[in-house]
Amino acid sequence: MTFNTQGRIFRFTSWGESHGPAIGCVVDGTPPGIALAEPDIQRWLDRRRPGQSRHVTQRREPDTVEILSGTFEGHTTGTPVSLLIRNQDARSKDYGEIRDRFRPGHADFTYLRKYGRRDYRGGGRASARETACRVAAGAIARKVLGRRVRIRGAMVQMGEHAVDRSKWDWKAVEKNPFWCPDADAAEAWTDYLDTVRSAGSSVGAVIEVVASGVRAGLGAPVYGKLDSDLAAAMMGINAVKGVEIGAGFGAAVLTGEENADEMRMRGGKPVFLSNNAGGILGGISTGQDIVLRFAVKPTSSILAPRRTVTVDGRDTEISTRGRHDPCVGIRAVPVGEAMMACVLADHLLHHRAQCG
Amino acid sequence: MTFNTQGRIFRFTSWGESHGPAIGCVVDGTPPGIALAEPDIQRWLDRRRPGQSRHVTQRREPDTVEILSGTFEGHTTGTPVSLLIRNQDARSKDYGEIRDRFRPGHADFTYLRKYGRRDYRGGGRASARETACRVAAGAIARKVLGRRVRIRGAMVQMGEHAVDRSKWDWKAVEKNPFWCPDADAAEAWTDYLDTVRSAGSSVGAVIEVVASGVRAGLGAPVYGKLDSDLAAAMMGINAVKGVEIGAGFGAAVLTGEENADEMRMRGGKPVFLSNNAGGILGGISTGQDIVLRFAVKPTSSILAPRRTVTVDGRDTEISTRGRHDPCVGIRAVPVGEAMMACVLADHLLHHRAQCG
Amino acid sequence: MTFNTQGRIFRFTSWGESHGPAIGCVVDGTPPGIALAEPDIQRWLDRRRPGQSRHVTQRREPDTVEILSGTFEGHTTGTPVSLLIRNQDARSKDYGEIRDRFRPGHADFTYLRKYGRRDYRGGGRASARETACRVAAGAIARKVLGRRVRIRGAMVQMGEHAVDRSKWDWKAVEKNPFWCPDADAAEAWTDYLDTVRSAGSSVGAVIEVVASGVRAGLGAPVYGKLDSDLAAAMMGINAVKGVEIGAGFGAAVLTGEENADEMRMRGGKPVFLSNNAGGILGGISTGQDIVLRFAVKPTSSILAPRRTVTVDGRDTEISTRGRHDPCVGIRAVPVGEAMMACVLADHLLHHRAQCG
Amino acid sequence: MTFNTQGRIFRFTSWGESHGPAIGCVVDGTPPGIALAEPDIQRWLDRRRPGQSRHVTQRREPDTVEILSGTFEGHTTGTPVSLLIRNQDARSKDYGEIRDRFRPGHADFTYLRKYGRRDYRGGGRASARETACRVAAGAIARKVLGRRVRIRGAMVQMGEHAVDRSKWDWKAVEKNPFWCPDADAAEAWTDYLDTVRSAGSSVGAVIEVVASGVRAGLGAPVYGKLDSDLAAAMMGINAVKGVEIGAGFGAAVLTGEENADEMRMRGGKPVFLSNNAGGILGGISTGQDIVLRFAVKPTSSILAPRRTVTVDGRDTEISTRGRHDPCVGIRAVPVGEAMMACVLADHLLHHRAQCG
Repeated sequence: MTFNTQGRIFRFTSWGESHGPAIGCVVDGTPPGIALAEPDIQRWLDRRRPGQSRHVTQRREPDTVEILSGTFEGHTTGTPVSLLIRNQDARSKDYGEIRDRFRPGHADFTYLRKYGRRDYRGGGRASARETACRVAAGAIARKVLGRRVRIRGAMVQMGEHAVDRSKWDWKAVEKNPFWCPDADAAEAWTDYLDTVRSAGSSVGAVIEVVASGVRAGLGAPVYGKLDSDLAAAMMGINAVKGVEIGAGFGAAVLTGEENADEMRMRGGKPVFLSNNAGGILGGISTGQDIVLRFAVKPTSSILAPRRTVTVDGRDTEISTRGRHDPCVGIRAVPVGEAMMACVLADHLLHHRAQCG
Repeated sequence: MTFNTQGRIFRFTSWGESHGPAIGCVVDGTPPGIALAEPDIQRWLDRRRPGQSRHVTQRREPDTVEILSGTFEGHTTGTPVSLLIRNQDARSKDYGEIRDRFRPGHADFTYLRKYGRRDYRGGGRASARETACRVAAGAIARKVLGRRVRIRGAMVQMGEHAVDRSKWDWKAVEKNPFWCPDADAAEAWTDYLDTVRSAGSSVGAVIEVVASGVRAGLGAPVYGKLDSDLAAAMMGINAVKGVEIGAGFGAAVLTGEENADEMRMRGGKPVFLSNNAGGILGGISTGQDIVLRFAVKPTSSILAPRRTVTVDGRDTEISTRGRHDPCVGIRAVPVGEAMMACVLADHLLHHRAQCG
Repeated sequence: MTFNTQGRIFRFTSWGESHGPAIGCVVDGTPPGIALAEPDIQRWLDRRRPGQSRHVTQRREPDTVEILSGTFEGHTTGTPVSLLIRNQDARSKDYGEIRDRFRPGHADFTYLRKYGRRDYRGGGRASARETACRVAAGAIARKVLGRRVRIRGAMVQMGEHAVDRSKWDWKAVEKNPFWCPDADAAEAWTDYLDTVRSAGSSVGAVIEVVASGVRAGLGAPVYGKLDSDLAAAMMGINAVKGVEIGAGFGAAVLTGEENADEMRMRGGKPVFLSNNAGGILGGISTGQDIVLRFAVKPTSSILAPRRTVTVDGRDTEISTRGRHDPCVGIRAVPVGEAMMACVLADHLLHHRAQCG
Repeated sequence: MTFNTQGRIFRFTSWGESHGPAIGCVVDGTPPGIALAEPDIQRWLDRRRPGQSRHVTQRREPDTVEILSGTFEGHTTGTPVSLLIRNQDARSKDYGEIRDRFRPGHADFTYLRKYGRRDYRGGGRASARETACRVAAGAIARKVLGRRVRIRGAMVQMGEHAVDRSKWDWKAVEKNPFWCPDADAAEAWTDYLDTVRSAGSSVGAVIEVVASGVRAGLGAPVYGKLDSDLAAAMMGINAVKGVEIGAGFGAAVLTGEENADEMRMRGGKPVFLSNNAGGILGGISTGQDIVLRFAVKPTSSILAPRRTVTVDGRDTEISTRGRHDPCVGIRAVPVGEAMMACVLADHLLHHRAQCG
């Protein structure tokens, strides 16, 4: 079973709770000889780190990564890379009230039902903190994929406010706190999210992740489809409730003529004239950009009191004070990129195994 | 690697191409002592079988299943159950034209890029025929889950035409060829699909699958999340381009107050007052109905000529004659149910392993 | 879980009981483009087939293999290869007496304890018949490994009678019914085994399998050691009770000076001056011959009456009439070769995945 | 792939090199609610710790384990348990000479061939230090198995000197530095090993591990046989070259009458009258003691100069000074016990999954 493990050949196993001493992961299957040092991972962790703008949780975590194994003289050796990130700002005193009450929309109830006990000091394994491990593993996956592959994420919708795709500018993404590719939308979102935050509320989002430079042929026809693995990877990110590839749910309203991407020879090479497929046909990459989107639900930790029950079966209410995200989707952008990188690296190695 | 295998403990490995002598699968991990004979599987295969109405492919396949192992005196023994379904109506002469041209929207191009060769007589492993194996495995999974768990699928949107959810009637589903839960919509769809079909076109669809009676506690917090596995299972069905759980993409436009399902004690038991979570919180089942939807793209095999290229690099056109589905989503309904059953059975056994 | 599956990337799943309609396996992960037709597999099955001399079971099984998928125009396509072998000579009437009594040394008791039921008509999955699937999968594995790798097995001990290693001749192996590399020993064994057989008794054996031409670098340092996987593969063959690599148990009585294989440069290449390691150091192949041995217990199905108990708890006796092997080790030779081939093919593909 | 992971449901992934900052492992699949704190693990680590007698390496490692995740209020939560053990006495200066020369009998050569680079400061992943992780994981496995199951190991042969089985006394095992069950043999071994050590030589050993109280029914018929998994687990321990179950290689010289364990009813229960099977029939536990032995080669790090070659292809010699074990088999005893515990715990959980 691989219940805390992601991937097959390039694979990582994560561990740790938000209120323990540390979190971390073990990345296995990395090819030897790849230049890898802590800054290669830290730069990606820094993008995900909380507390960087007023729009995300104010929990202060430096998220400093230590490499404990698997490298020698600045290169991977082919043995497992163990990564450690210490928890610093746990402040478990904040969480006293949630000890006995199930927070609506949280995993408190299901954890207790499954395991019969739970670490009531925070989200445990369900904490978004675990996603730091994904970002760290993703940093190594990017190294495995090489420079030719570029993976970028963007928030394309916050609440009801979608970007204008005609204004898409990848450069804009790095210039606003929302990873928004539409500079105008980003500005509007700033006010919008301030309102949401001051109301103690929260709002959902849609994230798009695009991988360019992926060679054709990655994936497998049936139960190891590239899109199937991507769907699992994205749906496994905290708070994600939907995933779509290429035209996605929009494909349902297309006709066959509209949907199927036609082909033509260009400069001696076959090219597709559109990309409704999102770069994947029959579970295998086409060589076009791989394009997916996922929906993130609004954080359930909100100020407004909500009806719930106690662990011992009484009706009550709860309102979550503390350092939470008005739009948890923001921090999901680097996580989605990382998961894309991990899935692609795994398929790259598997393709090499079977097809040379 | 598990590239033709679905599941961990309750798992099946499928094999076979549309134009070979047979297809089949090996179902492993089945608990011993379950009453199982061929009719238990055949009844579900019959629901998926092509040629049952003018709205689906007219390929004539009886899809008769044979159990070759794993049962004794009408019960499972705990050893692998091998299922065989012979191909009958392969008619490879129909497929001559596609030998040298990539069909847009099909896996022809990606298969050739990956493997360097392909069975040009049909879709090979990418054929929807493979889904018969999933339905067969799903029939056994239903037995593993027991009678308390009920899994039902319905088509909720055909092209642009969605059902009216206020008219939802599960009984209607079995009474029209579309598995449509809204009898009025079904009637309208009949004319609509006739038009699509006579135009040689095709159209997409959205399918909803609901599992009732699933106990709380199935799933796992991180990379073996129940929703993650369901997303992979549904995205792995042919032509599926999107998957969502509960409120799904709709959750992106909700606030935290609207989205998080509140709780109250009812008859001494905690109940949820809504089900935006789709029955899953933190990757673990809540005990509510598990509700998911997936989007199916329109069949790419259409009569209208489409631009494409040949295997040896010349621009050309193709129009697919033959026995194809104007709305391949129809036959995806029993497949989605089956995949839901397989994932739940697998998680049920795993939960029993870890938590007793 | 992989309880009926062998391997990771090159992997096969077997199914079937000795008294069902057929047995078979699904071989997954095969690289595309390998020339493969039924005779390529049949030739290896024919070597294992029962009834070829008076020294093995007289059960008459042609063991004719059918390829049901995964090849096209005489080559593998990269999709799963499904192999089917029909049972012909089941004669379940022979097995009436064993319905209610546990045969000492057989799996009857443990199957019933595990599953609560069992197919009492024969050995079920524990039947040596299952090993035909291993030989069939092994035939494909040999193709994956290519001609440079040569895998040969020999019986080096029958009962107390070991071969004289100074007389080792691989050509002799194919010329006697025991796969014995020492022609003189083979002659002596003929009389010996006739005596054992006429007495209704049985005797154990030791088999040696050698793989030549295996490149250095296959394997992994810790839990996927090449020797670890080989040990599992051999111990998983019916009736095997011990496995050793290189000097094996003999290494226990050596000193460090005697055991460690020294190295010298020869023709510009490093060579080992001995092979106590059996071609594996630290779980990774050295490039020398991979040498292992396994011990096969005597068949438990013997004529002499043995004390046992009935399913419903009464003391009784049993003597097994029927068509059994006086030295089941004989038929284990091709099976050991096949398992060696499967493990090496799997590691070859994995090495290519990680190290290019 | 599971190249640094052991097990299926109860599984652990180890990481770390002998000369890095730490080693550790992540134990996944542990049932929730098991009392677990650091001393529960430390007591087993202390038994394996080097430097406890003059007969083992004098490397000083306190091997203090830290639990970083997976427990709360002294009990397992069902989430992954991350264990960390810091390296203290790395002294890499000792290892300068081995930078450029392959040590005969070590994995230096194969690592370099596989990965193209290696951590020349020590054994890397091949270091016996890694086995501390196994012992730690084994401590948790023992908790999973419960008190009814008792796993004990003993050294039954050192070099050519075997114990006298008629003098077997489990109490003696804890009273001598060799885990020897024969007090007289232990005394003789003391002098013997002093001689070996002063000569700068080393010697092999045979270890026996016995598990009592294991219920019948654990295991699986074909590729997940309990004996197959045990063989892999033991062969995966550093320096192990052979594994046998029950009568093992001795079964080769037995007749069917001698080998098959007869049965009788005793106090209303079926019992076996002998245990040549070593507690496993058809890959499934019988309820008798599970008995296995494994052979450990002599340490290759010896004082006597040995012929070898340099990394850049010149003939040379090497003699290993430093803190090595004259009989590395001694420290393998707790490791063998731990691996037995891990395999049994994994099968216990899997049995519960499939058979309830």
